[in-house]
Amino acid sequence: MLLKFDYNNMMSDFIGEQGIKQEELDAMKGKAADAVAKFNANRGQGWLGWTELPYNQDEVVADILNYANEMKKKIEYFVVLGIGGSALGPAAVFTALCHYRHNDLPKDKQKIKFLVEDNVDPERMLALLDVIEPEKTLFNVITKSGATSETMSQYLIISDLLKKKIGAKWNEHIVATTSSARGNLIKLAKENNFKTFYIPESVGGRFSELCPVGLLPAAIMGIDIKAMLKGAEEMDKACTGVENNSALMCAVLQYIAMNKGKNISVMMPYADSLKYIADWYCQLWGESLGKAVDNDGKVIHAGQTPVKSLGVTDQHSQVQLYTEGPFDKVITLIGVKKFRGDVTIPQGAEQFPDVNFLCGHTMGELINTERVATEYALTRSKHMNNTILLDEVNANTLGQLLMFFQLETAYEGYLLNIDAFNQPGVEEGKNATYALFNRKGYEAKKEELENAPKKNAKYII
Amino acid sequence: MLLKFDYNNMMSDFIGEQGIKQEELDAMKGKAADAVAKFNANRGQGWLGWTELPYNQDEVVADILNYANEMKKKIEYFVVLGIGGSALGPAAVFTALCHYRHNDLPKDKQKIKFLVEDNVDPERMLALLDVIEPEKTLFNVITKSGATSETMSQYLIISDLLKKKIGAKWNEHIVATTSSARGNLIKLAKENNFKTFYIPESVGGRFSELCPVGLLPAAIMGIDIKAMLKGAEEMDKACTGVENNSALMCAVLQYIAMNKGKNISVMMPYADSLKYIADWYCQLWGESLGKAVDNDGKVIHAGQTPVKSLGVTDQHSQVQLYTEGPFDKVITLIGVKKFRGDVTIPQGAEQFPDVNFLCGHTMGELINTERVATEYALTRSKHMNNTILLDEVNANTLGQLLMFFQLETAYEGYLLNIDAFNQPGVEEGKNATYALFNRKGYEAKKEELENAPKKNAKYII
Repeated sequence: MLLKFDYNNMMSDFIGEQGIKQEELDAMKGKAADAVAKFNANRGQGWLGWTELPYNQDEVVADILNYANEMKKKIEYFVVLGIGGSALGPAAVFTALCHYRHNDLPKDKQKIKFLVEDNVDPERMLALLDVIEPEKTLFNVITKSGATSETMSQYLIISDLLKKKIGAKWNEHIVATTSSARGNLIKLAKENNFKTFYIPESVGGRFSELCPVGLLPAAIMGIDIKAMLKGAEEMDKACTGVENNSALMCAVLQYIAMNKGKNISVMMPYADSLKYIADWYCQLWGESLGKAVDNDGKVIHAGQTPVKSLGVTDQHSQVQLYTEGPFDKVITLIGVKKFRGDVTIPQGAEQFPDVNFLCGHTMGELINTERVATEYALTRSKHMNNTILLDEVNANTLGQLLMFFQLETAYEGYLLNIDAFNQPGVEEGKNATYALFNRKGYEAKKEELENAPKKNAKYII
Repeated sequence: MLLKFDYNNMMSDFIGEQGIKQEELDAMKGKAADAVAKFNANRGQGWLGWTELPYNQDEVVADILNYANEMKKKIEYFVVLGIGGSALGPAAVFTALCHYRHNDLPKDKQKIKFLVEDNVDPERMLALLDVIEPEKTLFNVITKSGATSETMSQYLIISDLLKKKIGAKWNEHIVATTSSARGNLIKLAKENNFKTFYIPESVGGRFSELCPVGLLPAAIMGIDIKAMLKGAEEMDKACTGVENNSALMCAVLQYIAMNKGKNISVMMPYADSLKYIADWYCQLWGESLGKAVDNDGKVIHAGQTPVKSLGVTDQHSQVQLYTEGPFDKVITLIGVKKFRGDVTIPQGAEQFPDVNFLCGHTMGELINTERVATEYALTRSKHMNNTILLDEVNANTLGQLLMFFQLETAYEGYLLNIDAFNQPGVEEGKNATYALFNRKGYEAKKEELENAPKKNAKYII
């Protein structure tokens, strides 16, 4: 069954003047239809290659499954070397669909440990080397360009280590996920004969989870990637029109909310398994919509700040702010109807009425009741909230959820008249790094940095 | 050495009209002095018991160290059952001061696995039971009131399991951290003869990391808790006056920033070890300052939304938004001068100028250079940012950092004229949960819920 999107508590009927009136929604119809038309006209083109991934990967999936089945017999550690979309998607899917404490399971219940390295903290790299055995490890280097400083630094360290530890066959411990046509990593892959999977040119980093970037790590971990793609397809097909298009409606509501000054979007799954889906969403939403100029070159400094949260945990951290604080946010709860296991809270608190009421209920009931209670508290305090409801967390519903957010983000880009698929703002920091490391060609930037205003010692305590 | 707080890039000298003018800072002097005076007058009283924790715990520390030394010989798993401040502090300190992949280390390098359970997701509880051996586990139940639904549910499940698996001596596997005077857990502790540590009445959940809530888990993991307290003491002593008080200055700058519409505070450590310090900060800042009314009863809906981020990782996720998006946030970078280990990026990319410039540098250089580059990019795009700089991550600097943020938060409360130490907003959700579970005494709330506007099916897709 498809996920349900419930936006009652975005509406003025439920939260009064902080909410959206039906007339305001109706007034958006033309703009929404325009967004859908533009999106559908551009499907599969430019940076919209991700729209085709549920439909055009039969061969890729077969290749991935073959390779995964072969490697699963040989390895005990699978390590993703990537950053941004190359790490957030694989980590989110692993957490959602594998055992919650997979890496802590005893050896007989877990053959392959799954590790994602998405930083260049030296302490973390040293820690990784303390816990893996390189000769039993497959490293999945993921970078489309092969020029990502963080991933290529990791690649250089790991390939050097493998050559020293393993010798001639070191290359069998690396699988490259990269562009087929350009960049450094494809060259290295050809030189060294790495097994390689390709990122389509028309698929950007944050929209890449359903291409080999995400499919290979998932397949290695035994996740049903065909079911994931099927879920994405079902969602996509349900979201092509102007009516009954939940992703479009979600985008329209957020658009109106932004215009009402809601500059924060909180993503709050009520399931530990979906915790990192919120992280993945934060990149998708933040990097896609945070733009200085619109498509006409007008300076707009757009962007809603995504915030990851977790129910019920953050009821004891953030919900005080969400219910009593400013009316500056939209809170999206993600609910799960049926958990994949449950635990009954036993008797034993008869003398404590403030605990005893829990006894005999299950944890699944408790987490879902607390979700409904939080929804009620947010609504009563007139704070915009909506709920995405999944039947259960599985490969199909996860595929739906990924596609839902990708579609919503794309629609939001059209509504805001911005390019949701580029990220020009990250260049400044990259260029400054190049200059600080004296990279050739960045002498002008180096000079600019040197001529920047000197810090005032009185502003340092 | 004490941490340094660098706020150059908050000032108009560096970010132009988006910044704070020296005159604006000067104009705050009276208000800041007033906040310090109020704070110092209230030290140790009411909810300000946390200010005394570096000074009044000699006996408690001795008791903790004795007990920890004894238990360390007996156990292989240490599990925190707690939520909010009872979980965020222990997790943050563990991540900062133990091996980054401690639980994945081979048995000879790691005797005790450390696990924090801060949710009621049934899948997660079942997963926990799959990876621990109860007879080798010590469960630290942390709740001051003994009425926290989530923690008490966990307690009931675990105590039931222990009784069945272990029999008479099940109570030796539970240590309770709770109020000495009131509540359910102290009663259960006395009935069952649990080892007990006390949370002072004057210490609230989010300010409790430096009392036994945090000290016991840290001591079990071999962390130097005396050094942590010493660091907190050093910070506290440096932050008592109006001049050269970095925590006060930080609070004043955020206060001015809030008045300029910066409703978001991003906490972005450039060190994986400090990742969960950002989580801990999010509770402290969000729950303390998110308040509907001020001390005079005036409705203000105050509160800056804290956002956890991680450098360099989130440069590939959030920095696009931070540099090009709205001028609605203050970004705090946390830098670490010296990492506890480093790795050199080897040669091997001579043919790729866009990678080769990294070779020969260390990862420590790379992460810190990227931090400085991001600081430059944020400043150049006129986005408010500041940097907290630690010499290194160790027990002393961590104690400093915890105290710095606690002091900043307390000062901010006085500046905003709000009660930074209560959390009335969480009651609504709790009461709704009680009502939904038919707890006696909540019949009126149940009726209220039943009479709430019914959902409109057309707002569900």
